[in-house]
Amino acid sequence: MTLRVGIAGLGTVGGGVVKLLAAQAEIITARAGQKIVVTAVSARSRRERDFSVEGLHWHDDPVALATDANVDVVVELIGGSDGPAKKLAEAAIAAGKPFVTANKALLAMHGAALAAAAEAKGVAIAYEAAVAGGIPVIKVLREGLAGNNVSRVAGILNGTCNYILTTMREEGRDFSEVLADAQKLGYAEADPSFDVDGIDAAHKLAILAGLAFGARIDFASLHIEGIRRISDLDISFAQELGYRIKLLGIAERTDAGISLRVHPAMVPESRPLATVDGVFNAVQLEGDYSGSVFLRGRGAGEGPTASAVVADLIDIARGIKVPVWGQKAASLAPAILQPMAAHEGAYFLRLMVVDQPGVLADVTAILRDHGISLESMLQHGRKPGEAVPIVLVTHETREEAVSAALAGIATLPSVLEAPALIRIEP
Amino acid sequence: MTLRVGIAGLGTVGGGVVKLLAAQAEIITARAGQKIVVTAVSARSRRERDFSVEGLHWHDDPVALATDANVDVVVELIGGSDGPAKKLAEAAIAAGKPFVTANKALLAMHGAALAAAAEAKGVAIAYEAAVAGGIPVIKVLREGLAGNNVSRVAGILNGTCNYILTTMREEGRDFSEVLADAQKLGYAEADPSFDVDGIDAAHKLAILAGLAFGARIDFASLHIEGIRRISDLDISFAQELGYRIKLLGIAERTDAGISLRVHPAMVPESRPLATVDGVFNAVQLEGDYSGSVFLRGRGAGEGPTASAVVADLIDIARGIKVPVWGQKAASLAPAILQPMAAHEGAYFLRLMVVDQPGVLADVTAILRDHGISLESMLQHGRKPGEAVPIVLVTHETREEAVSAALAGIATLPSVLEAPALIRIEP
Repeated sequence: MTLRVGIAGLGTVGGGVVKLLAAQAEIITARAGQKIVVTAVSARSRRERDFSVEGLHWHDDPVALATDANVDVVVELIGGSDGPAKKLAEAAIAAGKPFVTANKALLAMHGAALAAAAEAKGVAIAYEAAVAGGIPVIKVLREGLAGNNVSRVAGILNGTCNYILTTMREEGRDFSEVLADAQKLGYAEADPSFDVDGIDAAHKLAILAGLAFGARIDFASLHIEGIRRISDLDISFAQELGYRIKLLGIAERTDAGISLRVHPAMVPESRPLATVDGVFNAVQLEGDYSGSVFLRGRGAGEGPTASAVVADLIDIARGIKVPVWGQKAASLAPAILQPMAAHEGAYFLRLMVVDQPGVLADVTAILRDHGISLESMLQHGRKPGEAVPIVLVTHETREEAVSAALAGIATLPSVLEAPALIRIEP
Repeated sequence: MTLRVGIAGLGTVGGGVVKLLAAQAEIITARAGQKIVVTAVSARSRRERDFSVEGLHWHDDPVALATDANVDVVVELIGGSDGPAKKLAEAAIAAGKPFVTANKALLAMHGAALAAAAEAKGVAIAYEAAVAGGIPVIKVLREGLAGNNVSRVAGILNGTCNYILTTMREEGRDFSEVLADAQKLGYAEADPSFDVDGIDAAHKLAILAGLAFGARIDFASLHIEGIRRISDLDISFAQELGYRIKLLGIAERTDAGISLRVHPAMVPESRPLATVDGVFNAVQLEGDYSGSVFLRGRGAGEGPTASAVVADLIDIARGIKVPVWGQKAASLAPAILQPMAAHEGAYFLRLMVVDQPGVLADVTAILRDHGISLESMLQHGRKPGEAVPIVLVTHETREEAVSAALAGIATLPSVLEAPALIRIEP
């Protein structure tokens, strides 16, 4: 018996899957109970590659893989929420073939509709590679913690951002410099916006939240901030206060609904997430029975992502079929979201002010008027008449109060630029 | 449709499973695709419990659960590698009923035979709860990393030992004092030997190794050391040198075979395993494609263990069946083990010597004669004529050389007690 695989997309990950399946054929056959063999591929160009495509059925149109009689399961590694990736998903499902993908955008945007279609046809959709690469977090959430009500998912889901933030801290350099280096090293794309503006992390968060809460997530409703505005000043103040700045994706149940947000956060340096540096990813899951489960590993790259795709293929060969979102598509409840204005937490605020008498009195009066109390305040040295940073750390408060206070503070003549706000996560 | 569960053993974990299945019935039904209901139980006494057993079929003999017509799946939470637990496993398999267990001793001692029997009958054996409680490490290894050759598994697998070592470090107290406290708090058994002598961790390691390497592990061949001999002196020297002492279970492929060992280890404090304190468990897995995957969570207790058992039940309700050891029982290769004498690594050695001229010259001459070179040496203050500790940290060397050198050192008249040896793990 052989499971015949058609792969659309022969970039880094697609090549990795072809190579992994060949290199580990023996153990994969033993574990899967049958051979798993690539029989057909589709890619944009027939350029030279570091693996052979000889003997593979070549399709110029990826969608043709779905109806290739020599293909039992379709692996989509094209990317993009729409276009050929979506067409291929729909065609594979229509053809009754299991669909394996690393495409977080596709699942974040069309996951519920695809699940309903897959369910109607009785086929599996597997997407371990879509979130956190080599960390089997989809399996952990969808199967390993299936007995739990998950109250919170918090993760470092974008290796590019984590690499940039780590390098900024370690080398004391600013965002644009480190980004340029990351681009040279191939850790960041030429157009880095999907990564550094938090979109990629948000796609992954939407998937984790859908699974964790059995909810239908409207991607447009996520709160998304990236890391472009994080300055080296913020990073050094964070260290002084015992925090690390991380781009987190957070999904949590609150009294006011589900909070879904991607933003830079101050994480106390004793917390596991604070210790995750460089291109690593990590996810912290809170189950009501399991307690806290923390997972850390390589979030991207050829090997880790191929490992995830192949795990999905082995699952399919073993006959494992789990509901796409952990339960029937029709039973997914629309997520009631907590607006960011209702978010409650502590805040790190950084102001650039003219160092002159009365500034602090003005600022603290505004905070008081909005019911915000301070846990600490930092100002270093004195430069009368010049611009100096002042850092304020609030006690737990409501975001709408902080927003209103900052709007007021921004109008003070002695405040020189828009205040920086970074949420503190416990 | 309903999956009817019979539970043998109504201690902490058994009670936890009964309560979890009742409390989360709605989400479990949605996720499992059918109701999962406890219909029969067996326990040693009918004492009052904090949950109701009304309406459940009571068996005085646990083995009777296997043939109860109202039981579709048997959950064994009795414990012990032989006796009723083993009889129940065999009876459940013979009856063609899936068998779920938290029993690491049973699997470590009889796992291969049970797998062969289960395979012959086409039934599943599920044992997520047997290792690391709330951390789904069995699923991660058996499914999530199924495309990888795993080269190394290293874990903190016993919460009692980790609690004791953490408390010794934080409070500067010695082993026997902290153990007595742990017993009062219920973190250690009245007879603590299974935990503190490393047996429990070794059972779990044998399971992880069998899965990771597709190997048949002879439990008797594991190298097992516990934590009784760790002194507060060792802990404070470890801190000074930038290490944490952890009881690790390590399974790794080496040129000389598979190394399987449980022993206290010095872990550099920057490593993820070093940061795992108190009753938490953690496992670090090295896959050739996934890279390093680190998992951390609660290793024991009612909620985490029940979470693992219920995940297994949901798998069974979903029709998931994976080979017990990740591949056919007949294909498991007997593990060729590396003898400890061939272990290569760095060593922490602590001697108690009379502070007099010439001691160090004698000690270092012996080390030189065995080809052992030192990375560092620590001695604090001077107490002429009295006993003082000397700490030696070696470069990478072979264990047989270290053993021979220590045997020689132990015979020196100025060396007052058997030298302490703690392996350093990278």
